[in-house]
Amino acid sequence: MRIVRYTTAGNGEPAYGVVDGDGDAAAVDRLEGAPYDGLRRTGDRTPLAEVTLLAPVDPSKVVAFGRNYAEHAKELGNEVPEIPIVFLKPSTSVIGPGAEVAYPALTSDLHYEGELAVVIGRRCKAVDAADVPGVVFGYTVANDLTMRDIQKSEGQWTRGKGFDGACPLGPWVETEIDPSALSLRSTVNGELRQDGTTADMLRDVAECVSWVSQAMTLLPGDVVLTGTPAGVGSLQRGDDIEVTIEGIGTLATRITG
Amino acid sequence: MRIVRYTTAGNGEPAYGVVDGDGDAAAVDRLEGAPYDGLRRTGDRTPLAEVTLLAPVDPSKVVAFGRNYAEHAKELGNEVPEIPIVFLKPSTSVIGPGAEVAYPALTSDLHYEGELAVVIGRRCKAVDAADVPGVVFGYTVANDLTMRDIQKSEGQWTRGKGFDGACPLGPWVETEIDPSALSLRSTVNGELRQDGTTADMLRDVAECVSWVSQAMTLLPGDVVLTGTPAGVGSLQRGDDIEVTIEGIGTLATRITG
Repeated sequence: MRIVRYTTAGNGEPAYGVVDGDGDAAAVDRLEGAPYDGLRRTGDRTPLAEVTLLAPVDPSKVVAFGRNYAEHAKELGNEVPEIPIVFLKPSTSVIGPGAEVAYPALTSDLHYEGELAVVIGRRCKAVDAADVPGVVFGYTVANDLTMRDIQKSEGQWTRGKGFDGACPLGPWVETEIDPSALSLRSTVNGELRQDGTTADMLRDVAECVSWVSQAMTLLPGDVVLTGTPAGVGSLQRGDDIEVTIEGIGTLATRITG
Repeated sequence: MRIVRYTTAGNGEPAYGVVDGDGDAAAVDRLEGAPYDGLRRTGDRTPLAEVTLLAPVDPSKVVAFGRNYAEHAKELGNEVPEIPIVFLKPSTSVIGPGAEVAYPALTSDLHYEGELAVVIGRRCKAVDAADVPGVVFGYTVANDLTMRDIQKSEGQWTRGKGFDGACPLGPWVETEIDPSALSLRSTVNGELRQDGTTADMLRDVAECVSWVSQAMTLLPGDVVLTGTPAGVGSLQRGDDIEVTIEGIGTLATRITG
């Protein structure tokens, strides 16, 4: 099932919904409340083409893995980490599908990083990897936008990866998919830049979620980003980035001046 | 004014309140809603001794500065940073005054770090240092609990400083105080361990808030931690830590087994 968060022309209050049908027939059935403890459909339907999609989650935190694909670690001249590299992106960095990001004044080297995002469905702590499927709600697409120069110069990645708009998420959460071997592609202005598969993660979804949860409680709607494959690169003002994950969908973001 | 967040025996729903009076006469006047856009007193009063104090804020994020006092950087063998070191503590790490923290299973070297915490009162972005007083709501006391071994081994400080309970805050937000030269003392089981002054910050409150806000929007209730003076050290199960800042109050935390 595809779960969206959206507003309509008639109602500016964000709601969750289920997308039923495909193509021109696709419609959103509004849900009562959040979807994590069961889907309460209302039957209040709007054509998908007529809603404004927001980030499909409203996370208290986004926890992200660095260098979780060997070829990506190598392309930036880094070793594969023996201990996972984990950083946080604040909720103020989250934006939705199709959103625009103003090229940040702080950087002269803004990078895209297409990633599989895990959406947590149940409050959990110290989860064994084997039990992770029971706490996952579904998966969406992320772009871990990075001010590469700031990331390098500041040591801690907080500002380099936590600026406003640094975490595009969407277009929806797919709740029924096996994340273990999905094609992940990123394009910039239609040119293919990243062409990977989630099968190449050094630590898989279960290991990532388990690792974070050993330290901190994860809440419904929290997001775990699982790292980016090779092919990252610089963006310019006016660029259109699309990240597509097989079986989920395409997340589009435009960089503005 | 002292602003608390609390529950009562009769009402488990957290509310904000103003503490009026001192000592045995101190009472909490419940506020309608959050305090950031003006205090709406209700006249619903409870003796301070009868309420359960929570963390006085409910932040979307806690942004913290590392090595912001020269003597502290030195005691851990670090240089004073040329570029500020900024990290995030997630909302799940926040606990209130008098709370207990279970010694985390991940560490064998848990440290206290007493700090002045800035509470943001207005949504803001890219604030000049000169304008920071206009976006600050007040100040409280923080203990930036740190798994020192994990912090060192993992590079990014996310797990080392972001575990559940890693951010005790309280006992209240003091809204009328000049933060520039306040005594800051920490004791463990009554023994003095940190005896500093906020006058020794390498970057002062205005510079810290401004620096963070250049990258990310700060929201009302967000917290900026301004670093710890010298004297940090290890904690054991059963230890009682108290951090006292002149003109604000004392934040007590107990480490349990």
